[in-house]
Amino acid sequence: MKKTNWIAVDWGTSQLRAWAIGLDGAVLDRAASADGMGGLTQAEFEPALLRLIAPWLGDGPTPVIACGMVGAKQGWVEAPYRAVPCQPGAAVPMTPPTQDRRIKLHILPGVSQDSPADVMRGEETQTAGVIHENAAFDGVLCLPGTHTKWIHISAKEIVSFRTAMTGELFALLSQHSVLRHSVGGDDFDRDAFDTAVGETLSRPERLAQSLFTIRAEGLLHGQSNAAAKGRLSGLLIGADLAAAKPYWLGQQVQIGGAPALVALYARALEIQGVQCLTRDSETLTLAGLRLAHAKLTEAP
Amino acid sequence: MKKTNWIAVDWGTSQLRAWAIGLDGAVLDRAASADGMGGLTQAEFEPALLRLIAPWLGDGPTPVIACGMVGAKQGWVEAPYRAVPCQPGAAVPMTPPTQDRRIKLHILPGVSQDSPADVMRGEETQTAGVIHENAAFDGVLCLPGTHTKWIHISAKEIVSFRTAMTGELFALLSQHSVLRHSVGGDDFDRDAFDTAVGETLSRPERLAQSLFTIRAEGLLHGQSNAAAKGRLSGLLIGADLAAAKPYWLGQQVQIGGAPALVALYARALEIQGVQCLTRDSETLTLAGLRLAHAKLTEAP
Repeated sequence: MKKTNWIAVDWGTSQLRAWAIGLDGAVLDRAASADGMGGLTQAEFEPALLRLIAPWLGDGPTPVIACGMVGAKQGWVEAPYRAVPCQPGAAVPMTPPTQDRRIKLHILPGVSQDSPADVMRGEETQTAGVIHENAAFDGVLCLPGTHTKWIHISAKEIVSFRTAMTGELFALLSQHSVLRHSVGGDDFDRDAFDTAVGETLSRPERLAQSLFTIRAEGLLHGQSNAAAKGRLSGLLIGADLAAAKPYWLGQQVQIGGAPALVALYARALEIQGVQCLTRDSETLTLAGLRLAHAKLTEAP
Repeated sequence: MKKTNWIAVDWGTSQLRAWAIGLDGAVLDRAASADGMGGLTQAEFEPALLRLIAPWLGDGPTPVIACGMVGAKQGWVEAPYRAVPCQPGAAVPMTPPTQDRRIKLHILPGVSQDSPADVMRGEETQTAGVIHENAAFDGVLCLPGTHTKWIHISAKEIVSFRTAMTGELFALLSQHSVLRHSVGGDDFDRDAFDTAVGETLSRPERLAQSLFTIRAEGLLHGQSNAAAKGRLSGLLIGADLAAAKPYWLGQQVQIGGAPALVALYARALEIQGVQCLTRDSETLTLAGLRLAHAKLTEAP
């Protein structure tokens, strides 16, 4: 393997991912573990990182640039939020000391919004990646996931953003609520999804009752699990889109994340007449971390 | 103890409750266990019941009248739904055989609605209790809980009803989501509750984003756990009320259930200008079961 020039790290609540980057900026190797921030005490961060990246280290200190929940209050070291409006690519990382001299750690801060109160950690780095690719981009970046982010970008800045707990609600309802009996299996009915998105978007006040109807339709009318799953996903993404309407209506929209989920959001927005550019989230994260690395090395 | 004339049973998903009723109709004794329908196989129902009521049994067969999930497909024996509109007090119970000759079992059926698809098991018995007390009642019975029911009653019939998963959503979000960090403790801020109810009622489309704001307000502005809990409860009850508006607007409303939860719904409705009669759910359940017992004994 070529010599690792620096190491890119995306350290979320449930996952730790790392990439070895060569002198030419190419990815030489990648690794991931379940050592997310949520399961670690303060003293466990450095060993968890070294378990993953030790094979890539030489004698000299290798820069490690990390974004995500690793910078939260319960993380390795707190990297205080920067408030909007701010340029996500201009962040100054925290550089806490490490026990192991083979690494030099840089933790990127998250971004906060005072009102409506909101926070992000990690998504600002993906946003920096989007802006770095296209400095003139004026529009919205949607990052669906456990906590879906809607980020308004203008003049290289994050102007405002909002979070919806869409992925977490879907997981809780489909795994732990009475609806778990209805949505089992891998099949997904796209027509049921489309209909449900439209229902919540046009009548958002009905959501509280629509959810239980998924159960009742199964008991009374033999609704398939695929239709139930499509409806649950559609009702929740419809609720997300209803709340985020000021973000996507009449805007340029890019969507980044896991491909299947990105496709659902793109489909839902397309039905509303919004054409979206879909992005791979690893590409965006690495673009943002590369930018942070470039800033470090160009510093006087 | 006086001789038990019959035994009233409310058998839900997570709880089994029983009352020994005397010849004069008074409650002689009561008992409860965690042997809810959700945790029992078909063969375990009779032993679970006998563990609870054996001390009340004499030699002859004692009638046992049960309502709730015990009559579901996964219950002791399925008591098929009756479709709305129907008189909840006129139900004919299932009488499955029992191993133990000291009891004669009667299981009351639930009620279903074809469109919008909805089901209830147990709440129809409380509704029968309300109607039995006041045959002229024309209005709405709200039964908040894990699955809140809104039941339109007219001319002694259940005309229509709807279910919202409000209690289950509150439990999942406060125990298993990222909001669990924010809502710990027993304190509850009533002003935060009132504000949140009004927010969801006036802008139901914002719910998806309002939930995460609870977390962000704690991180950024030191929002107390009491305020966070009040807000979470208010947002969800507001969403319930938004969906149920056709049920409570301009209607006579009675609310039955656990006193603290009944008080919250009554408060939320009062702010909307709706005066409610609050009811004790045990009283309603027993009234409905007494009515079912009376029907059995008056039969030819």
